[in-house]
Amino acid sequence: MLSISHRGRQMPASPIRKLVPYAEAAKKKGTKVYHLNIGQPDIETPKQILDAVRHFDFKVLEYSHSAGNESYRQKLVTYYKKVGIDINYQQIIVTTGGSEAILFGFMSCLDAGDEVIIPEPFYANYNGFAVAADIVVKPITSYIENGFALPPIEEFEKAITPRTKAIVICNPNNPTGYLYSREEMERLKQIIIKHDLYLFADEAYREFCYEGKHISAMHLTGVDDHIVMMDTISKRYSACGGRIGALVTRNKSVLDTVMKFAQARLSPPSFAQILGEAAVDLPDNYFDTTKAEYMKRRDLMVSRLNAMPGVFCPNPGGAFYAIAQLPIDDADRFCQWLLESFSYQGQTVMLAPATGFYGTKNLGKKEVRLAYVLNVSALDKAMDCLEQALQEYKSVQRELSYVKETN
Amino acid sequence: MLSISHRGRQMPASPIRKLVPYAEAAKKKGTKVYHLNIGQPDIETPKQILDAVRHFDFKVLEYSHSAGNESYRQKLVTYYKKVGIDINYQQIIVTTGGSEAILFGFMSCLDAGDEVIIPEPFYANYNGFAVAADIVVKPITSYIENGFALPPIEEFEKAITPRTKAIVICNPNNPTGYLYSREEMERLKQIIIKHDLYLFADEAYREFCYEGKHISAMHLTGVDDHIVMMDTISKRYSACGGRIGALVTRNKSVLDTVMKFAQARLSPPSFAQILGEAAVDLPDNYFDTTKAEYMKRRDLMVSRLNAMPGVFCPNPGGAFYAIAQLPIDDADRFCQWLLESFSYQGQTVMLAPATGFYGTKNLGKKEVRLAYVLNVSALDKAMDCLEQALQEYKSVQRELSYVKETN
Repeated sequence: MLSISHRGRQMPASPIRKLVPYAEAAKKKGTKVYHLNIGQPDIETPKQILDAVRHFDFKVLEYSHSAGNESYRQKLVTYYKKVGIDINYQQIIVTTGGSEAILFGFMSCLDAGDEVIIPEPFYANYNGFAVAADIVVKPITSYIENGFALPPIEEFEKAITPRTKAIVICNPNNPTGYLYSREEMERLKQIIIKHDLYLFADEAYREFCYEGKHISAMHLTGVDDHIVMMDTISKRYSACGGRIGALVTRNKSVLDTVMKFAQARLSPPSFAQILGEAAVDLPDNYFDTTKAEYMKRRDLMVSRLNAMPGVFCPNPGGAFYAIAQLPIDDADRFCQWLLESFSYQGQTVMLAPATGFYGTKNLGKKEVRLAYVLNVSALDKAMDCLEQALQEYKSVQRELSYVKETN
Repeated sequence: MLSISHRGRQMPASPIRKLVPYAEAAKKKGTKVYHLNIGQPDIETPKQILDAVRHFDFKVLEYSHSAGNESYRQKLVTYYKKVGIDINYQQIIVTTGGSEAILFGFMSCLDAGDEVIIPEPFYANYNGFAVAADIVVKPITSYIENGFALPPIEEFEKAITPRTKAIVICNPNNPTGYLYSREEMERLKQIIIKHDLYLFADEAYREFCYEGKHISAMHLTGVDDHIVMMDTISKRYSACGGRIGALVTRNKSVLDTVMKFAQARLSPPSFAQILGEAAVDLPDNYFDTTKAEYMKRRDLMVSRLNAMPGVFCPNPGGAFYAIAQLPIDDADRFCQWLLESFSYQGQTVMLAPATGFYGTKNLGKKEVRLAYVLNVSALDKAMDCLEQALQEYKSVQRELSYVKETN
């Protein structure tokens, strides 16, 4: 029979994108929507790197090497050296976005039914790649009360089974913005040594650390074979549409295996490799400017949030996300209501319900993720909307629960 | 234990690329290598579509829609209309190359252990995507003697089991160049109706048909839900490095499912979507010129091949590949010898052993695939090399078999 695969049915629809029709309807009504729901920065892609693409001079748009152009990989060696990661170009496989690096990592190191442990809340698309690779995500919970710090070792050990093959972290974290300390990274190292696990480290937001220094998984010593880093230029240079990432590891068997997956899909996109290569030559202060901008936004947003009655938002140490707890009982319903039924001075705000970032059912129901990807003035207006919305929502919620109780 | 996954070990290394180190060594020795081994055309990418990329005017390289830019998909509707395929833009999901379309199709319609039937020889990377999706390829053999025509229905039916979910064809075919007739397409239609199967149709080479008209799977009537077409701009516009393809189907459940896989990886590459969009506006005679060029090459190569003693090469009806049977007993060894030990006037030729295109062991050992992606004069020289090589190889082969017998 013509049927959809089980995995196709299991595949989660994007929790971030499922509210899109409501946003579109709101816009059709003439409401301005502030998008704090997705990690698409408004920061301009540096002109010099866009120009590098404008000035390409080939006549045939050829396949690149399956692992990416050697010239680009050599440049990346320079880039990684600057952030204290010593590798050679053969330890880098250029991928189609960080997404493909994650998928290739899962596919190469885990078989159907194998398990990865991921501290939750976590980047929702890990679920999608896990379904594609037919592996099992075992979440262990981190809590808003202590700013989403790494769960204690015992929690990892409770989750480990004979099928556990890896731990996945995103550092700094999407969606929490949490930046793992050196001490926490060392703790992870002890676990992966003791239980012989891979550590998959998604370091897409490496440059955006506001409190303390970024400790890469690649900085950990004596665990070379354990570490598989997933990387991307998407956020770093505001170049999301380029679809250029990388899988980096010193583990030769993993590299050889990933390379076979890379060969099957022929090559990563050529144009954006030019952009990525040019990006390594950006002046060293490029990130200072961007970081300062994000920090200003974070400071504004987090202080506005914490000033709202009943709202708690831990100060994120990195990335450009924060999770806030709101005085609501159902974040999905609230986020939909914001788009469907609310506006303030002709404006509203789109947030991501945190439920989509938890693997454990019913967690995150009072929480939302906010991406501070808009400029300070837009963010401020978005916060006005949210403040007003929470005020109005009190009575809506009362009504809703009344309806529920009497039905 | 830190281990490589079973599927990672199963993943085939590219049979086309495994000779690369020998080619590199030959070049280091100063030998010129004619590359007939890969489907990388030398045809220039049309200047107007490269210029479209040069003149992009955005400031932020954003994610596109997960299904591709709507403007591009709308353009593709126009393109498909020109080739007699009537669809709307919501029936198109833009993918990262044709590769991703194949993977998404497999993932969405088949589960682990499910089977696809593919006439062999077939595009070797189908094996890779099958391993990634954990599905089973059941090859049914087509034969060089009758030009690699579609195997008879009985052969399909013999291969069908309760796990069979789909038939995969590539039309015109890579690696054989075979162009399926209307009658063969109708035969396939009967099979997919009778056994309720999907027909995955890879139509990457649609424009390159020299004998007769291309019949798309999308032209078949009354089987809308059965047909999933995989497409790409790579060969059509000599734009392999763009990594832009498409999955096209009128089956709504398949579209909805593929869309979830598409969302997980966020979006296809932005730059090359601009190129793809511009390509639809190329003058209608664009393909005439390209086709005439390929046809000239085919005619030269095939006639040169058939003039060599002991060589048989059926005249391919489409694409830019041909499979030739050579008077050799091990194509892999011969292709390696061409690079390692042979040169003629300082030149040699790189071919793809056909063994990598067969799913059945030990088939294709006397066959090679040749891609006529070089201009006529280079092709002619490549044929000189091959002719000379076959002459010399006779004694090499005698010697090799002598060594074998006496050991």
